[in-house]
Amino acid sequence: MPIPAEAFILDRHAAIPLQVQLRRQIIEGVMARRFRPGEKLPSIRALAGHLGVARVTVAQAFAELVATDYLSSRDRSGHYISDGIELAPDAGTPAPATPRLDWQRHLNRRFTRAQRRDRVPDWRRFRFPFVYGQADPELVDHAAWRDCAVRALGRREFDALTGDLYGEDDPELIDYIARHILTRRGIRAGPEEILLTLGAQNALWLISQILLGPGRCCAIEDPCYPGLREILTHDGAQVLPVAVDAQGLPPDAIPAGLSAVFTTASHQCPTGSTMPLARRHALLDRALTDGFALIEDDYEFELSFAGATSPALKAMDRGGAVIYVGSFSKSVFPGLRLGYVVADPAFIAEARALRGLALRHPPGHMQRTLAHFLSLGHHDAQMKRMRRSYAERRAVMLAAMAQEGLQMAGGATGGSSFWLASPVPSRALADLLRTRDVLIEPGWPFFARPDQGDGFFRLAYSSISAARIPEGIRRIAAAIREA
Amino acid sequence: MPIPAEAFILDRHAAIPLQVQLRRQIIEGVMARRFRPGEKLPSIRALAGHLGVARVTVAQAFAELVATDYLSSRDRSGHYISDGIELAPDAGTPAPATPRLDWQRHLNRRFTRAQRRDRVPDWRRFRFPFVYGQADPELVDHAAWRDCAVRALGRREFDALTGDLYGEDDPELIDYIARHILTRRGIRAGPEEILLTLGAQNALWLISQILLGPGRCCAIEDPCYPGLREILTHDGAQVLPVAVDAQGLPPDAIPAGLSAVFTTASHQCPTGSTMPLARRHALLDRALTDGFALIEDDYEFELSFAGATSPALKAMDRGGAVIYVGSFSKSVFPGLRLGYVVADPAFIAEARALRGLALRHPPGHMQRTLAHFLSLGHHDAQMKRMRRSYAERRAVMLAAMAQEGLQMAGGATGGSSFWLASPVPSRALADLLRTRDVLIEPGWPFFARPDQGDGFFRLAYSSISAARIPEGIRRIAAAIREA
Repeated sequence: MPIPAEAFILDRHAAIPLQVQLRRQIIEGVMARRFRPGEKLPSIRALAGHLGVARVTVAQAFAELVATDYLSSRDRSGHYISDGIELAPDAGTPAPATPRLDWQRHLNRRFTRAQRRDRVPDWRRFRFPFVYGQADPELVDHAAWRDCAVRALGRREFDALTGDLYGEDDPELIDYIARHILTRRGIRAGPEEILLTLGAQNALWLISQILLGPGRCCAIEDPCYPGLREILTHDGAQVLPVAVDAQGLPPDAIPAGLSAVFTTASHQCPTGSTMPLARRHALLDRALTDGFALIEDDYEFELSFAGATSPALKAMDRGGAVIYVGSFSKSVFPGLRLGYVVADPAFIAEARALRGLALRHPPGHMQRTLAHFLSLGHHDAQMKRMRRSYAERRAVMLAAMAQEGLQMAGGATGGSSFWLASPVPSRALADLLRTRDVLIEPGWPFFARPDQGDGFFRLAYSSISAARIPEGIRRIAAAIREA
Repeated sequence: MPIPAEAFILDRHAAIPLQVQLRRQIIEGVMARRFRPGEKLPSIRALAGHLGVARVTVAQAFAELVATDYLSSRDRSGHYISDGIELAPDAGTPAPATPRLDWQRHLNRRFTRAQRRDRVPDWRRFRFPFVYGQADPELVDHAAWRDCAVRALGRREFDALTGDLYGEDDPELIDYIARHILTRRGIRAGPEEILLTLGAQNALWLISQILLGPGRCCAIEDPCYPGLREILTHDGAQVLPVAVDAQGLPPDAIPAGLSAVFTTASHQCPTGSTMPLARRHALLDRALTDGFALIEDDYEFELSFAGATSPALKAMDRGGAVIYVGSFSKSVFPGLRLGYVVADPAFIAEARALRGLALRHPPGHMQRTLAHFLSLGHHDAQMKRMRRSYAERRAVMLAAMAQEGLQMAGGATGGSSFWLASPVPSRALADLLRTRDVLIEPGWPFFARPDQGDGFFRLAYSSISAARIPEGIRRIAAAIREA
């Protein structure tokens, strides 16, 4: 691509001649790899005009650089960055002579401190990725999504959805969620009770910002979803971890004086247990008598295939105490970044205002594409395909785990992963397996006290084919025996 | 669309017979407009199976509802919601008998309080919308965008971009921004100095969260961009408004002891003035001697057409004190929700971590589509078309304003709007004009003390055709004369 004239700026007050400044800027650009071999420079006339200097100044600078082989000149067609420049290995930016702002003093809130460091961005390179929460290209209906996206790119929809929507959401998508997604969970909600978010993570973040903060206190399940702990670490509220058992969160163990309780009742993250009906009633009663908000993260409910779906807590919530979080990351694909919150209109109004000031709204085009994907039945079809495929992979997993003697440590009512007991510290196990093309998730990021996670790991089957599962499980069992 | 069986849940512990419960749920659904005329109910067999009741129970409930005209039965094809139901006007949810959670006590942080209330979501319905920051469908290259989106929907790119990208951005987009967008502003930055955001609003929000908070102090321009004030209202930091003059923010007027100073140096929002070079140098010197971060919101720089673009503050920033904010909302379209921050790597690392916990990342598909739109030259072409069209509209505006005697109150170096003096209170003027099919933006949301804005209003020409401008200006002038 041609280098624009605007890439160059001269300082008329500097002691260095303009011609030399220009030469230095070109050399710097080449060395910093901003200008690449073969790229065309602006014409002498255009660059001189832009810089407000005589053409001879630019011509001299170019001639000098041709002589030193930084540039090559092709007759009449102009000047190009030379192909043959030997670049020194990138030594980074040299220490500048001017004083610099002390950023360490300026970074008032540090978010890198509690950042998750357990995720492997290049997971696709592993042959046996038992990695959770990523899409499997084999299961996503790419052609259907493309058709829906193209439909949403039609003239009329495009015009309506390219604007700043201010605080609003695509009414077609909200209507579909209310009438077809939520009804399947037994939830009744009007548009004033639903807000779109940038995935479930964004929903949990909005909730923490509105309900919590310094002086407030909340309970989370232990172990729990690490993304939630990451949010709460920065919130300033006191966070009490409550140990889950085989039936999920025990209502009796929840201390008094809380503002909010976070739960994954239908499918505890990461253990996979399902909260029985009696416990759900008890939890809802506690919410009303104690007066706390109950945040239900209903992730993966669409993937339940072992037994009937239990109704959501929100479906049983006569006191309006439940804030329900749903997401399309698992059932469509995670890069979509669309989820939703269902709650009391007073809460939704605050969440809408906060979303507006922090990010405005999810992109309109993604909203409308999803609305088409849902209303044309592609979502239902994809769910069916996913459930069928996951059921198959799950059976292969169970057989291989039994054969290799791997121990389950949690419930088994569907979803896309198993929670396993690790007879050896799982962090070291994960490190070892990585050198053998296998990715597993060690238990430590899930626990309030990371060392408690050493006895566990998670094996997801959402991004690994059934054919590769047995060999993957064999490698895990072998690594355990060695360690 | 058919109503799924999962829309119904029975309570076996309730005193009410199951058949009656089912009937009530159907009637409730109809009354609440969740079930609509003509929609098909599940078959008796399927619904009985889902509910775990005898088929006769469902059959009785359906027969009763056919008798009372809620349902109609079509021979052999099943049961449908009747077409002829008279719905009472929506009276809202009746007061429930159970105790309810007191949300007013639970909403710890209120974001609706400082919410902007000056925006008109249905601006498209007005014949003369002098509204700022919305796309003009005539100027957006819809066909090119669609082609780029389809390209980004190709199998290989789709697979790579539908996953959870964790903290990463599309490297192709970052590379293009670094080498072609930033170089035009004289800015040199590597990938570790650039972060994608959900538009400029999201960028400003990330910055405030990292640098400010209780106990910190910052300065903003007065008047300034209302979205920034909205963010800072909730931040807890002390905010000092500094009055701008015809050359933008005066460095001498900035008090000591600040952590951050926000500026729109190249094109002050909303007055449109451009900060001269000497003042820029003085401002950068102050940043280093006082030790404050300088946040440069370089919105609309692509739209400068009256005179040469001045280099960005960030281009002159040898001390690394500047955090640069850019956006594609104006140059592509606002619903895209993509912008970027350029700053010291230490700051970018914190911003990336915060973005990760609050929303993960902007959708991968939007990132890649934009990368194509940029690298195939569509962005440059669209910019040229916009500049040409805005220049034409601007000339028509100037002529009409001169003829009608409307007074400019700010600079005039390009962009997409004029800042005008209002001889009558502009809030009342805007209300009056709305009844006459004209949208203007009154001055109050821009000022620290809203009443100071009564003497001003903004007229944007980014969403109104040149042909309609003269009549729009005539109506404004007429309304001023009347008031």
